[in-house]
Amino acid sequence: MKLLIATTNPGKLREMREVLTPLGFEVVSLESASRALPEPVEDAATFAGNARIKADAYARARGLTCVAEDSGIEVDALDGAPGVHSARYAGSAGVREERDRANNAKLLSALAQRGPVARDARFVCAICVADAAGQVLFETRATCEGVIAPELRGEGGFGYDPLLLVPELGLTMAQLSPEQKNARSHRGQATRALAAWLATYARQQAGTPRS
Amino acid sequence: MKLLIATTNPGKLREMREVLTPLGFEVVSLESASRALPEPVEDAATFAGNARIKADAYARARGLTCVAEDSGIEVDALDGAPGVHSARYAGSAGVREERDRANNAKLLSALAQRGPVARDARFVCAICVADAAGQVLFETRATCEGVIAPELRGEGGFGYDPLLLVPELGLTMAQLSPEQKNARSHRGQATRALAAWLATYARQQAGTPRS
Repeated sequence: MKLLIATTNPGKLREMREVLTPLGFEVVSLESASRALPEPVEDAATFAGNARIKADAYARARGLTCVAEDSGIEVDALDGAPGVHSARYAGSAGVREERDRANNAKLLSALAQRGPVARDARFVCAICVADAAGQVLFETRATCEGVIAPELRGEGGFGYDPLLLVPELGLTMAQLSPEQKNARSHRGQATRALAAWLATYARQQAGTPRS
Repeated sequence: MKLLIATTNPGKLREMREVLTPLGFEVVSLESASRALPEPVEDAATFAGNARIKADAYARARGLTCVAEDSGIEVDALDGAPGVHSARYAGSAGVREERDRANNAKLLSALAQRGPVARDARFVCAICVADAAGQVLFETRATCEGVIAPELRGEGGFGYDPLLLVPELGLTMAQLSPEQKNARSHRGQATRALAAWLATYARQQAGTPRS
């Protein structure tokens, strides 16, 4: 069956395709639509709320079951900021790499202004699946706990990866191999929970309940 | 590692134990505490909110990572009722079987009063995992879609199972074998997503990141 993936990020689309194709799903991207779909306003207060807004809007617009995700970083000493504003924390100008650099710089600067505080933080990923009528079938949310590094470290990953230090490893998420990162990342964890759910969903849609 | 399961329902505890023991977790029940734990007030507007309240409260009270769930039935023509009030929809008197009977009778009667309306409904299960500090590590929510049967059908299951008809099968959840029920139930789906997440969590707690 067809499954619409509500992302325009090629990296996230590839990750999803790798998980979903072996389960027998035909992955459909937003770009495959004959006309551009209206972009919903992601104005929820939580990652889960925004994932729900996207899954619902795109599922109904395309008439397909849709998987949407929303993710970002929460810093305790900044009262949870950047939170749902993570992607555009320092503005929406420039290409992705420029925005990442500006976001990371703004986060370090905001934290420095707080003085000597605990630097606990976490990546959060929320995933939502809605059917063609917009009914939410499944949701999941996972976190990756860490602390904000004193400065950018590592060349891998993207977004805030060079700033989230995994205390047990003494390395930032940008210093891990893709496999190490995926094993502990918020998105890796949420995607595995999604895959476990989708395996059942695929069987049901094929009309062969496991019994 | 130890994992506290925040339920007093022996059936749910057994289901969780079956999933979690093979993953290497030592399942701890609420009853195993040397003194009774203070019961948190489950006053959230959603199943996910109540699961979060329970996971947070019991995790901090016992100093253990805690898995909590909240579940129930939503009926569209009743504006989502009984919803978070499912367990005590018709009051909290009597043993479980008596409450089930009263709840099912009240639901049929409430729906009859609405006249000839669509009988769409769904079971919802939310699961939340919090660590000993009350930090939410993982959440998931799954549904099982159906319609309310004209009358009670089937002897299996519990709660509202005899009233939720699975249209594709023409049977209520109480008419399915335990395996068939588990394959499509809200709790079965959410538990499989939890198990997929816990497999990673177990590896991380053991200090052996998959790489």
